[in-house]
Amino acid sequence: MPAPRAAIRLSMGSWYYETFENKTRYGVMIRDVLFSAKSDFQKIEILDTVHYGPVLVIDGIFMTGEKEEHFYHEMLVQPAMTTAAHMARVLIIGGGDGGTAREILRHSGVQSVVIVEIDPVVVEACRAHMPTLATAWSDPRLELIIGDGIAYVKRKDVGSFDIIFLDGCDPVGPSEGLFNAEFYADCKRLLTSDGVFALQTGSPILQQELFVDTMRTLKEIFQRVAPYFGPAPLYASDQWSWTLASDRHEHLAIVDERAKLVEKTARYYNRDIHRAAFAVPNNLKKILER
Amino acid sequence: MPAPRAAIRLSMGSWYYETFENKTRYGVMIRDVLFSAKSDFQKIEILDTVHYGPVLVIDGIFMTGEKEEHFYHEMLVQPAMTTAAHMARVLIIGGGDGGTAREILRHSGVQSVVIVEIDPVVVEACRAHMPTLATAWSDPRLELIIGDGIAYVKRKDVGSFDIIFLDGCDPVGPSEGLFNAEFYADCKRLLTSDGVFALQTGSPILQQELFVDTMRTLKEIFQRVAPYFGPAPLYASDQWSWTLASDRHEHLAIVDERAKLVEKTARYYNRDIHRAAFAVPNNLKKILER
Repeated sequence: MPAPRAAIRLSMGSWYYETFENKTRYGVMIRDVLFSAKSDFQKIEILDTVHYGPVLVIDGIFMTGEKEEHFYHEMLVQPAMTTAAHMARVLIIGGGDGGTAREILRHSGVQSVVIVEIDPVVVEACRAHMPTLATAWSDPRLELIIGDGIAYVKRKDVGSFDIIFLDGCDPVGPSEGLFNAEFYADCKRLLTSDGVFALQTGSPILQQELFVDTMRTLKEIFQRVAPYFGPAPLYASDQWSWTLASDRHEHLAIVDERAKLVEKTARYYNRDIHRAAFAVPNNLKKILER
Repeated sequence: MPAPRAAIRLSMGSWYYETFENKTRYGVMIRDVLFSAKSDFQKIEILDTVHYGPVLVIDGIFMTGEKEEHFYHEMLVQPAMTTAAHMARVLIIGGGDGGTAREILRHSGVQSVVIVEIDPVVVEACRAHMPTLATAWSDPRLELIIGDGIAYVKRKDVGSFDIIFLDGCDPVGPSEGLFNAEFYADCKRLLTSDGVFALQTGSPILQQELFVDTMRTLKEIFQRVAPYFGPAPLYASDQWSWTLASDRHEHLAIVDERAKLVEKTARYYNRDIHRAAFAVPNNLKKILER
């Protein structure tokens, strides 16, 4: 899908900004626009940036950049994968860039991964322009379903998956329905009784209210809700969070053999980082304990 | 010292940027310029920003903002203060904004704090415009020396201090001499044998080479060098680092009584965060173990 030239409003060698509520902004210097199109759902751009290499931008929000995506993808995926009771059947809601699937498929215990991504243009654009994220697509264990994740989790059978990853955007646009109790309850229904649900839960600093709300909603559905934290350089200037939600998953019961395998190539994740990530900043701890 | 109007080139309601090597930049929307002057050493501005309140900027680099300074100051100070064998006599090199002194003086075991700050204009500007950082100045245990930290540590007696904090800028301009083996050796000479030297050591992501070099230099002088990590929202878009260097300090031997006192008011620091912060990202771990 070639980019219609009219959609490109950027000049080369210029700054591209993501602006947070007209308060702060983060800019990257771009060399080129590799892809730009409006899909049925959103505006999708891939920018060639000086610092991060190719960067996926959706509706003006930085999603992932080749030189820093490991922070986000390793941390979304590996804490669940190194501790899950079972990992044979894995579901990803979203994740069309391929990075989450790549991290999951490092594990030989995985028999099948289903990705349910609503927007085929994201998949095509990233496959074409972000090769380091694309290694999973040739793996025969991976099945891509283009469709609505919300509808998918409603119709699948109880106990279909050992682990579910929610790799969505922020809760606006097509991702809005991915951040509520009904959707979480559907995910729980799809999981085996010792399954685990892993999701990105936004910035605990810039989006503190949303983060706290998400924790409360998850606690309505799951017995155990364990948020964890780490850097995500492309996502505004602070800290990012992910969460493991389950009824009986032990989020610190790391299987050393799995973690050692990951540590061979991981750039951010290791067992020390895994354990450390679950430490909760003091102000959030007080709010969450209320 | 009123700001000469000619020095103010910013219009209100505009973006102010710190740019990293023409690759990335971070911008804050400003409401007003509270202070702007050239001192004998550097350009000092205090901007009233929509997101962070008053922000200190030195030579175009964001230093500290009222609504996020706790990340930096708590993490520079409290890991050393909650674990130090002794804390009666404390030295700060730099730290003219007052935040580091404020954190140190939370502890009743501190008998004296000497700040050696080279630039009186930083002290005056912050006292006038950043009141939450200024609480330490009225504490009778605090002594401010306007002077060169490098010269000061050369002339002071062996074993003069229990803890030394280096709260400097990045290693350019007047701070350049604060990042080398000679200066570190002088600091070590000033410390008691079980003393500890705590310093900010830059971004381990954006400034990875500098970070690794600093670790190597510190290891030439000190037996134990323990870097630790955390968010610093105003400092580019990633992670920040600090380091405890000593000959026999135990950086995880937290004195619960001290930490509990800090946790009452701390916004980021607590004992879980303290222990977690010393986990080293996988790529850095491999580099540092070489």
